[in-house]
Order: sequence, then structure tokens, then C-alpha cells
Amino acid sequence: MGGDFGPHCIVPACIASLAEHPSLQLILVGLPSVIEPLIAEHPSVDRSRLLVHPASEVIAMDERPAQVLRGKLDSSMRQALELVRSGAAQACVSAGNTGALMALSRHVLKTLPGVDRPAMVTAIPTQHGSCLLLDLGANIDCSAEHLYQFAVMGAVAAEALGTSNPRVALLNVGTEEIKGNQQVKLAAALLREARALNYVGFVEGDGLYRGEADVVVCDGFVGNIVLKASEGLAAMIVARVEALFRSGPAARLVGWLALPLLRRLQNELRPARHNGASFLGLQGIVVKSHGSAGLEGFRMAIRRALTEVGENLPQRLHGRLEHLLL
Amino acid sequence: MGGDFGPHCIVPACIASLAEHPSLQLILVGLPSVIEPLIAEHPSVDRSRLLVHPASEVIAMDERPAQVLRGKLDSSMRQALELVRSGAAQACVSAGNTGALMALSRHVLKTLPGVDRPAMVTAIPTQHGSCLLLDLGANIDCSAEHLYQFAVMGAVAAEALGTSNPRVALLNVGTEEIKGNQQVKLAAALLREARALNYVGFVEGDGLYRGEADVVVCDGFVGNIVLKASEGLAAMIVARVEALFRSGPAARLVGWLALPLLRRLQNELRPARHNGASFLGLQGIVVKSHGSAGLEGFRMAIRRALTEVGENLPQRLHGRLEHLLL
Repeated sequence: MGGDFGPHCIVPACIASLAEHPSLQLILVGLPSVIEPLIAEHPSVDRSRLLVHPASEVIAMDERPAQVLRGKLDSSMRQALELVRSGAAQACVSAGNTGALMALSRHVLKTLPGVDRPAMVTAIPTQHGSCLLLDLGANIDCSAEHLYQFAVMGAVAAEALGTSNPRVALLNVGTEEIKGNQQVKLAAALLREARALNYVGFVEGDGLYRGEADVVVCDGFVGNIVLKASEGLAAMIVARVEALFRSGPAARLVGWLALPLLRRLQNELRPARHNGASFLGLQGIVVKSHGSAGLEGFRMAIRRALTEVGENLPQRLHGRLEHLLL
Repeated sequence: MGGDFGPHCIVPACIASLAEHPSLQLILVGLPSVIEPLIAEHPSVDRSRLLVHPASEVIAMDERPAQVLRGKLDSSMRQALELVRSGAAQACVSAGNTGALMALSRHVLKTLPGVDRPAMVTAIPTQHGSCLLLDLGANIDCSAEHLYQFAVMGAVAAEALGTSNPRVALLNVGTEEIKGNQQVKLAAALLREARALNYVGFVEGDGLYRGEADVVVCDGFVGNIVLKASEGLAAMIVARVEALFRSGPAARLVGWLALPLLRRLQNELRPARHNGASFLGLQGIVVKSHGSAGLEGFRMAIRRALTEVGENLPQRLHGRLEHLLL
């Protein structure tokens, strides 16, 4: 029910995903009166693979997490998480209120042993590949221990996604040991002791995009701002290039040829919007699709959930965390 | 003496600046044995406008500020600041160690009444213009009062640079009042009370580049990471576009036509590298050129210093700060 476009975007995205993944079964949780007519527009869909689970309430995009925890027991978001908790579903994908989703996920699914707070993670593109950046805004203030836990979780996620012995770094204002705030310096001390992790030290903002690490850890305040600033900058570059290319007939020709390439790049550079973000550290899989994600963005979020199911990510995390945190 | 390229870049930049600004006089502070031979390569230069002030020591790029304050009384950086303090110079421009420059600037020049900590500011490009971003790394941990002072200083600087009634915003993870860390929320409360400022609320990372404000305030940890991440992303986009354009003969032609435009854009997107950053809140003008700035970057830093001299920025700040802070 969530996101800027709601079921009008999510239902077609789900139907497209069913075609893409023949063994996928989806349960749409929300108001049947809204969802059913949208499904009915696709009469050929196999309804045995597209179920509707009714929920009578919807969490608004601006509701406060504390409020959400107390009220709305029959919200679509809570019911979807209950399906994961009970085992009726293997993952929950939502485009709704991020803070509410995080609060409800912790409440309904609980964190893995040793994890104080789940983190939000996504893959961002780098010069020659990609890297996982976390936390993206679920945890505004973080202690050194929280950053350490994020590093462990990020490393396990990177391994599950195919990077062996991932390089783990802390995002900081310099690479020397004396740089940074107290939390970052203390987290570095903890990570230097963690022999089972391939900790490579601090990376700066530019090192992030140079691909100096496979997992980059920061608090949610910094991560959220860096990610959104990157999206904004990418959009601005494309807008400026478009304007440059409108400046004359020869430039127009170049623009006509170059812009599809630039747009492809821009999509890659809107990672959360494009790929969705995972909540790590929960006893279950939760993927957050960006609120303003279109059909393609929601499909990407479903794909990400499928990958995590295939890799058994919570169980893998559980095993590694026991070793590294407890 | 500072920066990645030292006097080999700074001396030619200074000579070019003298040609650009006929009323400019420059004093090069440092080791005459290094500087004089570089000047001698330009025999036509008017030496009455290019003086050398000897200083026997150089602060290394990795020296700690505390160490710098105690020792090296005859460093080029300290001597240059002493020239500003005594009135022998109207501004100091340095490409050296940022932390040392900030510590020495505070020690030698002192802050303006009401200012706890000077801030580092630069102009970053936005969708339709530019905005001032501060702090960029001089102050890693900031209280709400510090953020408030940065907002006031940024607004005065924006006015001095030609923006009337500049829109002032706090960088945050959301635009709603409940979002953000404690410092940001408290700073917002202070700014809402400051009727003399045009406070427009929170902006998110993408709003920064959409140009939602003329002055964007954050702590130095966030500002430094956002600025460097933006530089890194811009460099990555250009590198990726170059790679795309090498993918075939038609693409090569497009690339050949488009890359000069993109490179121009990239330079704009490396603001600190390109424009230098000002220290605001001191009883004197100090401009920091990026350590890796080339000749053009150092010329831009000199231009920025000239603008601030022309606008009498410290005196303007002093007048407004008395009104807004004391």
C-alpha cells in the first residue's frame, strides 16, 4: 500500500516479476478493494501465484514510528511482517514509510542475537564495480559498537552477494588514525582487533566512489545524506549535460546520441531508488523499495529479496555474528 | 610552501594572478632558496608586486594541529598569518595542511566576538546556480550553537557575494521537524527564532543540488564527506562516460565532441579543488586552496581572497554577528 505511487505501481511490478521468476509466489498485503481491481486489469495472471492477504489499515508516509508501534495493528506493513515471522512468507518488500518499516520489523521479527540495531544497506556503483554502503538512515546516532556491528553485517552480506574476503572500511574525513569523530576512531580500534574481518581502514568520500572498499560503514545520518546528495548530483549532471547539448545544432546531435548513455548511468547512480535497500540484522528478510521507485524500482527490490532468500542471508548472518560479536 | 605541488605550482599561479589583477601585490612566505629560483624563471615579473618574506620552517601535510601550535614559530604558514594580523597583508592564501591552518588562524588572528569556532565554506554548483556549504571539515563535532553560528556566518557571506536575503537551511535526513539528530533539531529551533535570517528549514542531500537553499549548514564531518563524495562521483561519472564512448566508432565520435563539455562540468563539481574554501569567523581573511589544486585552483583561491578583501568580509561579519549572536 506504500510509496508515492502505491498499488498502482506495485501491482504491475509484481505481475511483471511473476513472469520473470517462474517459481516466485507473491502475497499482496493491503486493502482488497484497492488491490483486486488492479489485478483484474491483468486477466491472464496466474492467481495461484498472486495471493491477496487483507489488511484494513495503511501506514501514512509521515507517521512517526512510535505512533505506528502503538496503533494500527491491522496495517498492511505489520501484517506483511507477521507473514514473514510465521513463515508464511520468506521475505517482505515494502515501498512504505522507512522509519515505520524499521520499527515494525524490529518489533515483529526481532534482531539476530548480538545485533543492537538493524542497518539499512544498498549497493552503490564505483569506478570499477560496486560497494555496499551502510547505514543509510535507519540509525541516526551510532556508537562505535553499532558501527562495528554494521561492519560485520556488511561483510557477511557482501560475501553472500559474491565478494570473497570483502574489504571493509569506515567512512571518515581523512585516512590517518587521528582523523574523525570519537565514534569512528573507537570503531576503528574495534575493527583492527577483528582478525576475521578484512578491515582496510578509513576511506574518504571520494574513496567511496573510487572503489577503495567493498563495504563502507557510517552512521545513518551521514549515509543518508551522502546517498541522497549523490542522487541529486547525478540528476544535476544529467540536467546540465542536457542543457549544454541544447546549446546548438551540432551539440543537439551529440546530445541525442549521448543522452541514452548518460541516463543509463543516472539510473545506476540512484541506487536506493533503483535497487532497493535491505535491512540487515533481523530474523527475517525485509527489503525497502524507495518511496518514489517506479515499476522498475519495485521489481529490483523483489529481485533483491529473492537473492537474499536464495543466499539464506539471515541464517548466514546469524552464523557469522555468533562468531564475531558474541 | 604547502600543498601537493608546493611552490612549483604556487609561484606560477601567483605570477599569472599578478597579470590578471593589476592592483594586486603578493607576498610569498617561505624558504627563499626554493622560491627565488622559481621566480627567476619569469624574468619579466614586476618584483615590486611580488615580494618574498622569508620563513625558515615548513609545516608538513600530516603534522597534527596541536604539535604545530607548540612548535615551528617560524613556519611559512604562521608567518603568513602574522602578516595578516599586523596589517602588512590583507589576506592569507594557503594550500597547506588544513587542520594546521585552522589552528594557527584561530591562534594568530583570533575569532570574531561571538564566534566559538571558525567554519570552512565553499560554493558548490546547483541546478540553476550555486550555494554555500559549511562547515567542510574544520569542526568535526558541532553543537546546535555552532551550527547556528555557521548559519549566521554563511548568510552574511552569501550576502557579501551578491545574494540578497539568502535562504538558509540545515542539511538533514528529512524535511520534517522530527527528523535528524539532536544537534540539528536544536539548531533548527534556534534558527526559527532568528527573525533576521531567512531560515527555510531542513534540506536533504538531493535538495542541496536542486538548489533549495543559498546557504546549507552541517557539521564538518558531514560536510567534508559530502563534498569529497561529490567530487568522487563527478570523477566517476566522467570516467564511465569516457569508457562508454570508447565502446565503438560512433560512440568515439560522440565522446570526442561531448567530453570537453563534461570535463568543464567536472571542474565545476570539484568546488574546493577548484575554488578554494574560506575560513569564516576570523578577524582576518584566510583562504584554503585544495592541497591537490593545480595552478588554476590556486589562482581561483587568490581571486576568492580578493573578493573577500573587496567586500570587507570580516568587518561585515562582525557587524552582523554583533546583531545576531551577542
